[in-house]
Amino acid sequence: MTNRQIVLRSRPEAAPSADNFEMVTASVPPVPDGGVLRQTIYLSLDPYMRGRMSDAPSYAPSVAIGQIMVGHTVSHVVESKNPGFARGDLVTGYDGWQEYGLSSGKELRKLDPASAPISTAVGILGMPGMTAYVGLLDIGQPKAGETVVVSAASGAVGGIVGQIAKIKGCRAVGVAGSQEKCDYVVRELGFDACVSYKSDTFRDDLAAACPSGIDVYFDNVGGAVFAAALRLLTVNARIPLCGTISDYNAGKPPSGPNLRPLLVKRALIKGFIVSDHNDRAPAFLNDCSAWLREGKLKYREDIVDGLEQAPSALLKLFAGTNFGKLIVRVSPDPTR
Amino acid sequence: MTNRQIVLRSRPEAAPSADNFEMVTASVPPVPDGGVLRQTIYLSLDPYMRGRMSDAPSYAPSVAIGQIMVGHTVSHVVESKNPGFARGDLVTGYDGWQEYGLSSGKELRKLDPASAPISTAVGILGMPGMTAYVGLLDIGQPKAGETVVVSAASGAVGGIVGQIAKIKGCRAVGVAGSQEKCDYVVRELGFDACVSYKSDTFRDDLAAACPSGIDVYFDNVGGAVFAAALRLLTVNARIPLCGTISDYNAGKPPSGPNLRPLLVKRALIKGFIVSDHNDRAPAFLNDCSAWLREGKLKYREDIVDGLEQAPSALLKLFAGTNFGKLIVRVSPDPTR
Repeated sequence: MTNRQIVLRSRPEAAPSADNFEMVTASVPPVPDGGVLRQTIYLSLDPYMRGRMSDAPSYAPSVAIGQIMVGHTVSHVVESKNPGFARGDLVTGYDGWQEYGLSSGKELRKLDPASAPISTAVGILGMPGMTAYVGLLDIGQPKAGETVVVSAASGAVGGIVGQIAKIKGCRAVGVAGSQEKCDYVVRELGFDACVSYKSDTFRDDLAAACPSGIDVYFDNVGGAVFAAALRLLTVNARIPLCGTISDYNAGKPPSGPNLRPLLVKRALIKGFIVSDHNDRAPAFLNDCSAWLREGKLKYREDIVDGLEQAPSALLKLFAGTNFGKLIVRVSPDPTR
Repeated sequence: MTNRQIVLRSRPEAAPSADNFEMVTASVPPVPDGGVLRQTIYLSLDPYMRGRMSDAPSYAPSVAIGQIMVGHTVSHVVESKNPGFARGDLVTGYDGWQEYGLSSGKELRKLDPASAPISTAVGILGMPGMTAYVGLLDIGQPKAGETVVVSAASGAVGGIVGQIAKIKGCRAVGVAGSQEKCDYVVRELGFDACVSYKSDTFRDDLAAACPSGIDVYFDNVGGAVFAAALRLLTVNARIPLCGTISDYNAGKPPSGPNLRPLLVKRALIKGFIVSDHNDRAPAFLNDCSAWLREGKLKYREDIVDGLEQAPSALLKLFAGTNFGKLIVRVSPDPTR
């Protein structure tokens, strides 16, 4: 049995390209006692992967050249010599960009396809959902009646941020990259407003969408959207800093805005990495599963078929051409 | 009896100049029932005054053209028709740039010259001291063994920040504008190290002074010092944002550094205005008075004689040519 894997071949100087990756073929080793072999169904593609391709110091180690690219996965168990798992079990883990994963299984979490579609384990009920939950609720501390703005609002994290803001009684305003995305954010996700950062009138549009200013700005992008939000902060505003995707492909990091508004408005910025907050996983899963069942959380997936498509698909995140949670379907989903 | 007053005559475009002010002479009105008339002894000059000269939106209203410039003062009561005050009482208040103040006295706080020199009421036991106390302890949350860096370290706020950091068991590192100031910060105030931001090797010097990185960066200046500190943050670092004096005279606010280090280091920035924290005044006065009595807090004053010198003296704050807490002695101090 062969295991196709995608390894990092070179590091990008600026924007990554498919040439930074290489498909290799390994054989699947025999399953040792205590081992769990699973086949990847879904591979999640996420913005943080750009950081792992770089050797610039960051919050997590780089992927070494020649090493399998990292990634969250949903899989089904094909062979188990671990009493905790049986053939056919559906699990989520971190098998990365490959067709088969093998380990003792201690990092795996079992999925119940009756409770939610299994792909949500890398989306709304996975890392992106928990990022939204922890960043908005623990750092943003939104209060009913406040205005919450989120960038990359049609993306995997942003879409959930705005919907949780609505659940908490806030005004939710999105920023996205096209009218089509903005329409989706308002009509499908139920945000109160959404403005395109590509519009010539973006700054005015954002101000008009936030007549009482911005109490919480959940930032996924940095750059010009961050600068525009800074001008609209209310006193004691909070900025959970989740990502700076507008900068990820810059050879030299661009400068930022003048920070005096933070002083004038006594604002708080807090960078966070979701993996620091694993103690919040039970509350997150409990709340978001319930909201999903109750129809209060909606989501959209952008599914690409075939592991070999992962390199080119990843680039969509940085070009902003994905629409919804970007996922590679590595093998057929037995539950659909 | 005449009352010399300095009013704002025009708003500066960039750096303020003495021409923005005008000395006027009023008569001291008769003291009404319940009134307290006092003569200014000390007038505090502070960086926030630049903001009050501008009509740009900020956290406090501008001084109107023709209005007396605001400022913290130490005075002695010359006539009282309020049973709470007697002639000769020493008080601190907000009489601004004038020789005599008159009010009901409800905003005044009485001073005991036996417990501390009365000029400290606008310095180490006044607004600058409380700014240092609240910003460092409540936002910075320093823990013993951590490294605390403060800019404008020889200034009224910065000098206290580093000394409180030492009291709390931290490594205190200052940034100041000359070798003479750095020597004072280390030898007199007891910081562990101090580096000059005017040195060509400033970034390397700061890194060398912080071998374990920066856990708390108390920022009074913004600009290049902020950017240098950002590169050295430890995980979960805290940045109380107190002032951005390097920008105060910029016609157009300069851009800031790229903020990705905040994300990578899960750092917190919080702007604050000391007047939001008046609930902390009793704890501040209690702690800092005790530390001062015990010889754990030292300070230096840069005293300029004569109200007419206030406009030119204020400019020293922005040129960095003051050395210690800048104070105008408007009339003789009866306690010295």
